Amino acid sequence: MNATHKLLHSHLISGKLEVGTEIGLRIDHILQQDATGTLVMLELESLGLARTKAEVAVQYVDHNLLQTDFRNADDHRFLQSASARFGYWFSRSGNGISHAVHMERFGIPGKTLLGSDSHTCAGGGLGMLAIGTGGLDVALASAGEPYFVKMPKVLGVKLTGLLPDWVSAKDVVLEMLRRHDVKGGRGFIIEYFGEGLKTLSTWDRHVIANMGTEMGATTSVFPSDEITRFFLKQQKREKDWVELEADSEEEYDELEEIHLNDLIPLIACPSSPGKVVPVKKVKGTKAAQVVVGSSANPGLRDFAVVSEILKNKTIASQMSLDINPSSRQTFQNLIEGGRLAALLQAGGRIHQTGCMGCIGMGQAPASGSISLRTMPRNFPGRSGTLDDQVYLCSPETAAATALCGEITDPRDLENRYQMIYPKWKEPKEININTQMLLPPPSLEESQNIQLIKGPNIKGLPEFSALEDGFEVSVLLKMADNISTDEILKAGSDVLPLRSNVEELSKFSFYVIDQSFYERSQAAIQGHVVIAGENYAQGSSREHAALCPRFLGQKAVLAKSYARIGWQNLINFGIIPFEFVHPQDYEDLTVNDKITFKDLKKKLSQGERVTAHVVKKNKDIELTNRLSERQIKIILAGGLINYIRSRLKK
Amino acid sequence: MNATHKLLHSHLISGKLEVGTEIGLRIDHILQQDATGTLVMLELESLGLARTKAEVAVQYVDHNLLQTDFRNADDHRFLQSASARFGYWFSRSGNGISHAVHMERFGIPGKTLLGSDSHTCAGGGLGMLAIGTGGLDVALASAGEPYFVKMPKVLGVKLTGLLPDWVSAKDVVLEMLRRHDVKGGRGFIIEYFGEGLKTLSTWDRHVIANMGTEMGATTSVFPSDEITRFFLKQQKREKDWVELEADSEEEYDELEEIHLNDLIPLIACPSSPGKVVPVKKVKGTKAAQVVVGSSANPGLRDFAVVSEILKNKTIASQMSLDINPSSRQTFQNLIEGGRLAALLQAGGRIHQTGCMGCIGMGQAPASGSISLRTMPRNFPGRSGTLDDQVYLCSPETAAATALCGEITDPRDLENRYQMIYPKWKEPKEININTQMLLPPPSLEESQNIQLIKGPNIKGLPEFSALEDGFEVSVLLKMADNISTDEILKAGSDVLPLRSNVEELSKFSFYVIDQSFYERSQAAIQGHVVIAGENYAQGSSREHAALCPRFLGQKAVLAKSYARIGWQNLINFGIIPFEFVHPQDYEDLTVNDKITFKDLKKKLSQGERVTAHVVKKNKDIELTNRLSERQIKIILAGGLINYIRSRLKK
Repeated sequence: MNATHKLLHSHLISGKLEVGTEIGLRIDHILQQDATGTLVMLELESLGLARTKAEVAVQYVDHNLLQTDFRNADDHRFLQSASARFGYWFSRSGNGISHAVHMERFGIPGKTLLGSDSHTCAGGGLGMLAIGTGGLDVALASAGEPYFVKMPKVLGVKLTGLLPDWVSAKDVVLEMLRRHDVKGGRGFIIEYFGEGLKTLSTWDRHVIANMGTEMGATTSVFPSDEITRFFLKQQKREKDWVELEADSEEEYDELEEIHLNDLIPLIACPSSPGKVVPVKKVKGTKAAQVVVGSSANPGLRDFAVVSEILKNKTIASQMSLDINPSSRQTFQNLIEGGRLAALLQAGGRIHQTGCMGCIGMGQAPASGSISLRTMPRNFPGRSGTLDDQVYLCSPETAAATALCGEITDPRDLENRYQMIYPKWKEPKEININTQMLLPPPSLEESQNIQLIKGPNIKGLPEFSALEDGFEVSVLLKMADNISTDEILKAGSDVLPLRSNVEELSKFSFYVIDQSFYERSQAAIQGHVVIAGENYAQGSSREHAALCPRFLGQKAVLAKSYARIGWQNLINFGIIPFEFVHPQDYEDLTVNDKITFKDLKKKLSQGERVTAHVVKKNKDIELTNRLSERQIKIILAGGLINYIRSRLKK
Repeated sequence: MNATHKLLHSHLISGKLEVGTEIGLRIDHILQQDATGTLVMLELESLGLARTKAEVAVQYVDHNLLQTDFRNADDHRFLQSASARFGYWFSRSGNGISHAVHMERFGIPGKTLLGSDSHTCAGGGLGMLAIGTGGLDVALASAGEPYFVKMPKVLGVKLTGLLPDWVSAKDVVLEMLRRHDVKGGRGFIIEYFGEGLKTLSTWDRHVIANMGTEMGATTSVFPSDEITRFFLKQQKREKDWVELEADSEEEYDELEEIHLNDLIPLIACPSSPGKVVPVKKVKGTKAAQVVVGSSANPGLRDFAVVSEILKNKTIASQMSLDINPSSRQTFQNLIEGGRLAALLQAGGRIHQTGCMGCIGMGQAPASGSISLRTMPRNFPGRSGTLDDQVYLCSPETAAATALCGEITDPRDLENRYQMIYPKWKEPKEININTQMLLPPPSLEESQNIQLIKGPNIKGLPEFSALEDGFEVSVLLKMADNISTDEILKAGSDVLPLRSNVEELSKFSFYVIDQSFYERSQAAIQGHVVIAGENYAQGSSREHAALCPRFLGQKAVLAKSYARIGWQNLINFGIIPFEFVHPQDYEDLTVNDKITFKDLKKKLSQGERVTAHVVKKNKDIELTNRLSERQIKIILAGGLINYIRSRLKK
């Protein structure tokens, strides 16, 4: 077996490891961040949970840290009370990015981790089976239910050789994105193996695993080896180490190879993580901002290398260099050896620990300007500036660009500054910081804890069961690869509404069409939207399904879906139809009225649904990839209704 | 002469040093921050300035650092281009709070400093005559015009003795506020003298001078002595030192004394800096947030003492401790000796260098919760949370409260934690950081520089000359001590609009009455507002006059005014009337219509104005304290019109 199959096998509760069939997995660890976690906690309340069944459940507060008014601070307080109530660890506001802190303080090789954040897959760097998904799936797993997912294929990626100077782990995953784009990984778990691994630290593996989600992969898996053991020892948790390796190199559904020596600095151009080109192809382009941080480059190394490159230098005069330490512990270790001082001296602006600009919570770039970021995503408007031009790159490319004021291949620093590549060696000893991790109280104590809800924290809306037929309007027709950032925007104006569905819904599809909310209110019988390939890629926010449903969305008609977005639609009772005939996508237009009938029977019997386009007097054939379980969820009007009726029985 | 008179005398251009008469002063240094500076730069453009005439002019970027969308970053870019264009130094985004950086890098004893920020008076800690005022006054001083102000009285404050343990400079100025409240300092410059001074560092003096503006004082002045010399030597600028001392202790218009030994920890309660009580009176009150930083406690000491108190401890479990370094240089020095690490280990959230929550740009407290801050102001809603409860205190009280989770008298730490007061000794050597200060280019270079204006940066509106008569509505009746935070709110939703008067105007009086904007639009003939004592105290933002004027405000009828607010009204052509009969304030109500006539003649001839309240058929007598020069400004419709017509002649 490969490492992935070992992880799946040891956690299989239902189904068989047959590609494409639905399997149920036992979940050991639960991870929540604040922007999705408030909804998870409301869901746990709605489900009447007494206490999480997970071995370890942690609520992090890393997204909504700006606190521009009372709402974010209210959310943090609510999450602290809910963590105590439901038996979660609470990682206090500003303690660090969930994925980084989870790896530092909690992650254990061989365990499963389910998180309400799409980058939860970063845990694969530690030999975990770590999957990001919608909040409701996390709530149920926390309540002890299995996590259901289609059994993916395993893509083995053999790493050989050694990374050249000025090339680092980020370039490895950018190379994967160059090959596979943002949907090539769908239906796969990517497993890395080979002797090249020995040169990649656990943080490097985190970098690569983290951005696996950008290819649409279910997750990425690294083995747990001596490198992993070193990491856990460094974190003073060596006892948590277990070995996990593939039995042989011939266990993969598909196979490819990356010869590390061949890699060069790469960069993803605006506005998709899949638009990867060599840095040298865009070098010389004037840039106004460089941001270093996020779950995509969270290791001490990723900040230290920037510090080493900028030591005793000054960033370009038109440049803003924003440094966003990933965890309080990493921040503290960055102080050692004068690294933080060097960043300050060079002109870095040091921001509070967390996700910051990755989700548009601050440091939005100036209009018409170019921003380079070590972050994982650059979907349109995600930075907070609607017409942004964000590039994604390695810390080396980021530092070189900050110094020169234009996009710079870091290899050019050798000639331009007579610089020697600052090779990084992981320290054996680091400072450990656990101060801001509050353990769950005892069961007895937790029963008496009241949830503290500020005025912006509203309950979950109730939805009715599926109607057998309806006539709805087409409100929007979208292209391929629409991200959840476009369905429900990121940014500091909207994120504080994550626990207030009614208000948040007003921003549905705002990035694409600012009239959407108003038009949805006019479509009193409900609506559908049309999409191309890979609909709802990106962030795991279930709000991108919940809010459209709240506005009357009955179905999506798409060429194909991203995994998490697809699951979220089902969870909130929106039917994720797929076109049988691609031409129908072409023929449909905004404002078409479409009639659906006999839905219950057809869906229950696994039949195709024929919808009728009223004025065009045309039928379109629609299929779906729903499991029997998922059909029942759709019929019930969503997963909460489904679970409730199951509990009644 | 006292030190104040020496400073005034050496800079007097017009008038005589007779209390209450208008004097014109030569300005040596100009200070601008970004939230007011964009308007100053637009004013310089409007005046057609070639290059600043000031010896040193510095544009800081310290307020609007959150960058929640393109607008703040666009402002920074505009300010950088305008600085180069008009011959200013540019302190780059996030380099630090203007007052702290100006003292570290530019301040010179014996010089005058005019700044478009009310806390500019902090420069008095260095023996400067440092005055905060509206942007247009700063623009004119930058263009070489004198700064006009009513000659104040000088209040001598004799300091004797030595501060007890756990009591620091903040408690000295809180004691002054306890005595004088928020309007007791109006018409005064406060000069500190006496042997007690020898125990106060330059940063301590900065703390005391900074909050002089909270009493309404024109400014505060400290002598320049050996302590000052030590500071400048530490800053590697000893050559900038000159001595400045009062000739004797009998030179003051009024006199009082503070025996430092008698002071105890003090705290200003919500929501006025003047509501000062001993900490012990409110101790035990549960607090949710402590914020350390701002121009009111910017010294390395103010952070180091918090670090020492929290070393090897952890903040209370429901507490958010937000640390906001005041300048990049101080941040860098805070790293030394493990001080920053101790703050991180104890649970501090470290934020980017700047003003942050002091002006509601982030870290707003949760609803209904209590926040303690080392900041200078706690006007209603200024934190970003409309119904906030903000207390102002020393770093010692802040640290003790962060530790205990409830308002705590720091002296109680001795018993509670067997703690010895961490006495601070200023280091002889510190790290100097000048990296982010861009010097002005040569005159030749600067002429070719274009101003870079993003889409949110609009020109200044044009206003017409004063009409001889009009009938207007009373739109608002306000109590005493209305701050500019209430006239034009702080906070991250509004601050990015500081260079867009039309949009910003919609928030006029928003904190007091959210229907104001709409009602002003309905009052097509214009409006007046009624106020009590000390109208428009607080921040120097001229937007608090400009925006109401834009909405049709013709006059304010108040019992009395704060200095800067009063000057700003005049600068934008709003007549600052005062009631002759206090009963008229009582009788007027919202929606009254008031008729004014023969205004030009009466104002020109220095006569009282009689206004007629239409339905009540009642006359009210109004006076003003305008100088001849100011009458001309009012007649012209504002200072820009006045200057333009003077230039034409």
